Amino acid sequence: MAVRTVSAGMVVIGDEILSGRTQDVNVRQIAEFLAPLGVTLSEVRIVSDGHDRIAEAVRALADANDYVFTTGGIGPTHDDITADAVAAAFGRSIGVRDDALKVLQDWYARSGTDLTEARLRMARIPDGASLIVNPVTGAPGFQLENVFVLAGVPKIARGMLEDVAHRIEGGAVTHSVSIRIDGAREGDLAEGLGALAKTCPDVSIGSYPWFEDEGEAGIKRGVALVARSADADALARAETALRALAAEQGG
Amino acid sequence: MAVRTVSAGMVVIGDEILSGRTQDVNVRQIAEFLAPLGVTLSEVRIVSDGHDRIAEAVRALADANDYVFTTGGIGPTHDDITADAVAAAFGRSIGVRDDALKVLQDWYARSGTDLTEARLRMARIPDGASLIVNPVTGAPGFQLENVFVLAGVPKIARGMLEDVAHRIEGGAVTHSVSIRIDGAREGDLAEGLGALAKTCPDVSIGSYPWFEDEGEAGIKRGVALVARSADADALARAETALRALAAEQGG
Repeated sequence: MAVRTVSAGMVVIGDEILSGRTQDVNVRQIAEFLAPLGVTLSEVRIVSDGHDRIAEAVRALADANDYVFTTGGIGPTHDDITADAVAAAFGRSIGVRDDALKVLQDWYARSGTDLTEARLRMARIPDGASLIVNPVTGAPGFQLENVFVLAGVPKIARGMLEDVAHRIEGGAVTHSVSIRIDGAREGDLAEGLGALAKTCPDVSIGSYPWFEDEGEAGIKRGVALVARSADADALARAETALRALAAEQGG
Repeated sequence: MAVRTVSAGMVVIGDEILSGRTQDVNVRQIAEFLAPLGVTLSEVRIVSDGHDRIAEAVRALADANDYVFTTGGIGPTHDDITADAVAAAFGRSIGVRDDALKVLQDWYARSGTDLTEARLRMARIPDGASLIVNPVTGAPGFQLENVFVLAGVPKIARGMLEDVAHRIEGGAVTHSVSIRIDGAREGDLAEGLGALAKTCPDVSIGSYPWFEDEGEAGIKRGVALVARSADADALARAETALRALAAEQGG
């Protein structure tokens, strides 16, 4: 079955994740957003808050993928440099734009907040970009070419995705099946699994060991087998074979 | 103050994270491991389980950083291709090595587990690599040049790090100060913060808005200011200035 493969890259900006202070959750959030649209997240780069680092990563992933998502660095403070870096990645100029300014004016008028000089920074949008609605805190994201620039705060990023879905032309949706085998060990499964994988060229089959600490009861272990395919029939055949393999292992 | 900057890159392998099925925690774990050693995590790439993708990412980050860490893809199943990809990244040959084989034989003899043909895959180690002890499940990781190849299961990766710390020659340790200002808004802080950042060239100052849903009590918001520096005196001066700024905002 020939299917159109649509891929996305993601650039996470970045210092708070790289320092270990903050646990990123946007990778998972965006992967879960893209899957039902038929878009596969193919690579993520987490980069520091540096203009050239951001611009290079955006450019590299924009060339290699159908879409790119960035999260972080679009607020009003001095360390918010994503918009300028994305503009530079495409050789566009950037400044306070009237449409973004109006969004901010209307939002802050409703909430009685001063539109300070600093907040004007959030109306800096690259030439040729279209705005992305931010239903949570007002200040918009934007789309430039195939790049979607979102906030880093997960709730705001999630809100912005509402205005992104309709802009995505996805491909075939990848479906998956997950089979958990309590007590199994990868080393006992590997031979059968490798042989099975060769008979299912249209299905990606992964094997993931897990360990759970049950306190005084000791450590439980097992394996999760995950099969993925855009071809429903091929996936169903693989699932049948995987369940047979799991049954042999007492799963 | 002149300080030696030591950086690390990280390659996360990868399909289970990119699909959204699994939440990565190894980035944070390795960042927290590196910080007290005086090593800054500078970039992370999450790539799919493809030989060339892994090899390219490892090569790129090994050239750009003092150290590289990889997590994932070193088990006994067909989808475990990290060792081969890392060998290819450095043009090394790879095969079952006697020292790794002995580690597996001893480990499995103690636990009464069969050393199957599939498990032999975990003794495939690139030429010139040194083994990394795995105190959790036996099968070793390895170090090739400046690249440390670790398991993907977080508990196993953590165990392996015990045998990595003594191999790291770190630089000056970056210390950080975090100041949380309840109720503050970035737009009100930004001007003062930008001015302050300019007076502290040896300190990296970040601003991170947060929102907490308190149910019927509504949404609480605030800002976390984070200052980082390897220069303790410069950091102390920045902290004093930041606390004064926070006090102005009622923090």
